[in-house]
Amino acid sequence: MNDPRAGLEALIGPKSVAIIGASDDPGRIGGRPLRYLIKWGYEGPFYPVNPNRETVQGVKAYKSVKDIGQPIDCALIAVPAKFVLDTLEDCAACGVKSAIVFSSGFAEVGDEGTSAQDELTAFSKRTGVRLLGPNCLGILNFHSRFFATFSSTGDQGYPDPGPLAIISQSGAYGTHLFAVCKGRGLGVSHVITTGNECDVTVAECIDWAAERDDIKVICAYAEGVKDGPALIRALEKARQNNKPVIFLKVGQSEEGAAAAASHTASLAGADEIYDAVFRQLGVYRAETTEDMLDAAYACTAGIFPKAGKVGLVTISGGVGVQMADHAVKLGLDVAPMPADAQKLLKEKLPFASALNPVDTTAQFFNDLSLVGVNFDIMLEKGGYDSAVAFFTLAACSPYVVEPLLKELDAIRRKFPDRLLILSLVGDQEMVDTYSRAGYLIFEDPCRAIGAIAAVTRIGEGFQRPPINLIPDLPSPVDMPARALSEWDSREILKAAGLPVVDAVLCRSADEAAEATAKFGCPVALKINGAAFAHKTEIGGVMLGLETPQDAAAAYGEIMARAGRAMADAEVEGVIVAPMIAGGVEAILGVQIDPVFGPAVMFGLGGVFVEVFKDVSFRLAPFDKTEALRMIEETKGAKLLKGVRGKPAADIDALADALVNLSVFAAANADNLASVDLNPFVVLEEGKGAVALDALVVPKA
Amino acid sequence: MNDPRAGLEALIGPKSVAIIGASDDPGRIGGRPLRYLIKWGYEGPFYPVNPNRETVQGVKAYKSVKDIGQPIDCALIAVPAKFVLDTLEDCAACGVKSAIVFSSGFAEVGDEGTSAQDELTAFSKRTGVRLLGPNCLGILNFHSRFFATFSSTGDQGYPDPGPLAIISQSGAYGTHLFAVCKGRGLGVSHVITTGNECDVTVAECIDWAAERDDIKVICAYAEGVKDGPALIRALEKARQNNKPVIFLKVGQSEEGAAAAASHTASLAGADEIYDAVFRQLGVYRAETTEDMLDAAYACTAGIFPKAGKVGLVTISGGVGVQMADHAVKLGLDVAPMPADAQKLLKEKLPFASALNPVDTTAQFFNDLSLVGVNFDIMLEKGGYDSAVAFFTLAACSPYVVEPLLKELDAIRRKFPDRLLILSLVGDQEMVDTYSRAGYLIFEDPCRAIGAIAAVTRIGEGFQRPPINLIPDLPSPVDMPARALSEWDSREILKAAGLPVVDAVLCRSADEAAEATAKFGCPVALKINGAAFAHKTEIGGVMLGLETPQDAAAAYGEIMARAGRAMADAEVEGVIVAPMIAGGVEAILGVQIDPVFGPAVMFGLGGVFVEVFKDVSFRLAPFDKTEALRMIEETKGAKLLKGVRGKPAADIDALADALVNLSVFAAANADNLASVDLNPFVVLEEGKGAVALDALVVPKA
Repeated sequence: MNDPRAGLEALIGPKSVAIIGASDDPGRIGGRPLRYLIKWGYEGPFYPVNPNRETVQGVKAYKSVKDIGQPIDCALIAVPAKFVLDTLEDCAACGVKSAIVFSSGFAEVGDEGTSAQDELTAFSKRTGVRLLGPNCLGILNFHSRFFATFSSTGDQGYPDPGPLAIISQSGAYGTHLFAVCKGRGLGVSHVITTGNECDVTVAECIDWAAERDDIKVICAYAEGVKDGPALIRALEKARQNNKPVIFLKVGQSEEGAAAAASHTASLAGADEIYDAVFRQLGVYRAETTEDMLDAAYACTAGIFPKAGKVGLVTISGGVGVQMADHAVKLGLDVAPMPADAQKLLKEKLPFASALNPVDTTAQFFNDLSLVGVNFDIMLEKGGYDSAVAFFTLAACSPYVVEPLLKELDAIRRKFPDRLLILSLVGDQEMVDTYSRAGYLIFEDPCRAIGAIAAVTRIGEGFQRPPINLIPDLPSPVDMPARALSEWDSREILKAAGLPVVDAVLCRSADEAAEATAKFGCPVALKINGAAFAHKTEIGGVMLGLETPQDAAAAYGEIMARAGRAMADAEVEGVIVAPMIAGGVEAILGVQIDPVFGPAVMFGLGGVFVEVFKDVSFRLAPFDKTEALRMIEETKGAKLLKGVRGKPAADIDALADALVNLSVFAAANADNLASVDLNPFVVLEEGKGAVALDALVVPKA
Repeated sequence: MNDPRAGLEALIGPKSVAIIGASDDPGRIGGRPLRYLIKWGYEGPFYPVNPNRETVQGVKAYKSVKDIGQPIDCALIAVPAKFVLDTLEDCAACGVKSAIVFSSGFAEVGDEGTSAQDELTAFSKRTGVRLLGPNCLGILNFHSRFFATFSSTGDQGYPDPGPLAIISQSGAYGTHLFAVCKGRGLGVSHVITTGNECDVTVAECIDWAAERDDIKVICAYAEGVKDGPALIRALEKARQNNKPVIFLKVGQSEEGAAAAASHTASLAGADEIYDAVFRQLGVYRAETTEDMLDAAYACTAGIFPKAGKVGLVTISGGVGVQMADHAVKLGLDVAPMPADAQKLLKEKLPFASALNPVDTTAQFFNDLSLVGVNFDIMLEKGGYDSAVAFFTLAACSPYVVEPLLKELDAIRRKFPDRLLILSLVGDQEMVDTYSRAGYLIFEDPCRAIGAIAAVTRIGEGFQRPPINLIPDLPSPVDMPARALSEWDSREILKAAGLPVVDAVLCRSADEAAEATAKFGCPVALKINGAAFAHKTEIGGVMLGLETPQDAAAAYGEIMARAGRAMADAEVEGVIVAPMIAGGVEAILGVQIDPVFGPAVMFGLGGVFVEVFKDVSFRLAPFDKTEALRMIEETKGAKLLKGVRGKPAADIDALADALVNLSVFAAANADNLASVDLNPFVVLEEGKGAVALDALVVPKA
């Protein structure tokens, strides 16, 4: 039995290859991979298998894989679906370590295909033969010239290998990405397309790539993953190794999600959860192909800013504004230069506007030493983590290139950890001179800003401690395997350290009156019982009762209403709780995602959730730093900080509650379906926070 | 005295040119324009003026413009700022019709420069000599080879003229745009840079371009305009002529706006007002250079969809989802195919997923006649206004290009009004074959979607009736030239047809009691007087008074509080009004923009305005269709339609109020500073809407 990782190595970088179903017709699915191995000079031996021919495309053919008599690292399978399993059994019988199954007709065609695919999975588990696909476009390994695909990308010239790995569920998209990279001159080391993923997954390939020194940037594409923890482990390994991952996960809009579901056999987790995973793990989630490859290109510089303070230099005031607008939109910090730096810059470059953007006007290029002076002041005194210089045409004059490079090189040497991007347009030879000198070049200044934003997010991710740093989870609570009442829910959450409103569970009107007297303020009464999840609708809640007498009457009224609405439902008393005035209403929740497990949600109440869907998620458990980031991500965070003269809310208490909820969710994930704390009132700073209602739903 | 338009023609397309300050050094500001005229073969005669030389760059030179003795359409002025006015006087003296002032040192350098620039403006007004600049990069007219600039863009090759006009306040940005166009192979007819705009403005150049048959698309850039009505007239003319305008106006973020202000001598209007102007006039507001030129390129097809229903075809399911996500984000309608069309498509292309996106998989290309079948079904039965086909590499095989073009050409002939964009990547020669055949090509599928969204917005703008279709504005009201009380404000607005809450102005506690009894429900009491703009802060408002007795007491209390807080302020009684329960709180307002005049604002109350700044603006007056669009633009519109079981609000009544407010604002613009209706409660559908508070502020 193979070691799984050794099998994966044999799959991606095989030392020897069999092509089963090899065709003499170089245009057919069985003919193309052979043609490409020949054409591009694959470095190892390869053996076509075709029972009907002596040679295939001029290469000696074998009747069966069993006739080859040589060790085979990887078999390419291009036979109809119904023959795939027998072919693989033959492979296993003669020690083949891995196989790429190009054949379609599996899970993507429905139930029958799914059964056939399950047999492939079982085969792989039983034999240890690692399988890529089925229904995939194979692998391109540009180091070993292992061009194992039937995609027409093999007809479009051979690129120099480079630092990018492309790992894509979709074959069409993976090869498209590669074609775009090639057009851009962006070097790729491997393209791996995983198709239906009967065995090898995008997650496992990311894990593999995270360990490779010849891969500097990982571009991943998936419509959904089945094994969330495996993806998390892989992404976390990449992060620990400072290996940027740029992920395009489709299905954000309802229409998009519908299209994804109609296309793949994938189980797509809720999109918000993917967002949470990516944010937590420092993955840059790209929205478009351009976005992805701009970010990947910027990552090739190997400089990952620790924070988002960006300095802008421009010879056009208008473009300075464009860049500033775009940077702010993308969450970067266009901080003005410190006063002393502005003063100094004004002395040295009197014609420039010295704020940030620094608008040098075209006069900049009359004395190129000023370029060095300017950047020195900005990076030294301004402390910017990154910078974009919009030089456009002006830097592409043949008289400018050499002296400008001299200035910029000196700056780069002095500030090796600052990311600098040049925005240029002009003669390609001039632009290429800057590229060859190691500068990142974007024609469009706003795309340069986008790339800075992407690399900054990745850099910030690299700074953060390992995820799930909660050392010891508490033992799971003794969760009843039935619906819970509000009282039971609140007692469980209270025990888990969540602040819940003080309350008394009353069994009679007298007890209700007594509790009201004790609280000494207006109270709320609520029917309690596992069946009353929608208590408001049946009149089971009465608010603002001022006196014990009123409360006692309300007790009777609520019991009567409950009896009328749901005669058979077991009533477990009435909860009496003080009314809480003021504060900001929030919603806290837990959801057990089928792919990623327990996740915690935060949002502000009312229109924030209902109209703006302004919520953020994190996988549980997490620490307070992560809780604060989670709060900060919502637009509603502004309200918590106090708007229009209102006091700031107790964000600290809110963050503590989120952490405790995340620990509870993680500890009880196996027995839990969901939790809701709604409303969860965040009081004025220093006064804490309190859940006014709670619902814990155990796993059915 | 010139006719101004004839002067402008002489400026942009002169028949003869003088170069004043012409230098023999071809690299200097005075040398470059002459060099370019020579090098690129300007079609008319040109006369260098240099008092110190017989010839300049080999061309006979004149001591003064007055020595030329030939008619001059346009003089290029490259002399120091202090000599500009005298030079211009000489020009005027010998009948020069227009001049381009390259010289800097005017309004951009502060007060002294502003005075000098004002003299240029006065000169132009007095003499009729049209002036471009100062502090501009001149004009490139690719038809007449009038290359009147000192930008180094003149050193980078001469492009074929094309359908785009670039009109830019900023010279650096205008020439950058042109350089990017050239790199993309996007043909430009004119580049006009207006600089400090002492006379000729971006608005006037748009007006000019809107009438030119050789200009199909107008790309405009400005940091701010000074004459709003002129811009509106120009944009409206362009729209009436179905001439798309794509506008990049910078200064959206606070940081961006700060940079704009530090750079130009422009008076930047509030950015939201520009947004309103552009939306009202069907202008596509680009956010980045790439966005602008993608839109411009797409406009060159001359097909402007009437609506936003987009059909997506893809050979990669994943890219289908990407495109769908992006389309939804940009407000396009990714409507599914009708059921019968899906059925038919499934019959013809059994391998395809037939929803929308239609995922044909790569099998599509095994029988290219299916491409025609597919588009025929989608466009005929699906009724899509536009379509994007993601064919990537697959369409760039040499075997595919010809037969695929045949299929696509047939579709194009059958559906000439539908915009089709192809997303391709591959061998440039193959891609160019599609371009030459007249297809729009984008490598990136999401940029193709962005272009569809831009052209759709423009197409929708072309459909709309002329703006300001309110036939007769009422006479202005007799507006007192002093601060108004709430009561005076509400009476004015009531007379203008705005719904205000029923109320009584009471002068005694008895009157307050009487009014309360009359209303027969809880009432609010509010101090009334011109000085009490912030009445809540001084305790001048009491709410929820249930009985006449309570109201009478409240009257006394409010009067006492007002006396304590503002002893000298004139009290004009207390307003008694019924409390209004339910409904959705909105804010309506009028602002007189210094550039564009009266504008109406709409937003929902509370966090919508305070946290999300979720408001929309329109220039006044406007009709109900525009009012409804204005409401629809806000995110809060969802709340008006009813969320989570709440009833829909009376959007019709809200729209009527906005129209009436716009008519009032337009009729009284000269005497008005601002209006606020806040809160303005929109009641349940059919029950109208009502302003609970009103403030009219006359012009000081």
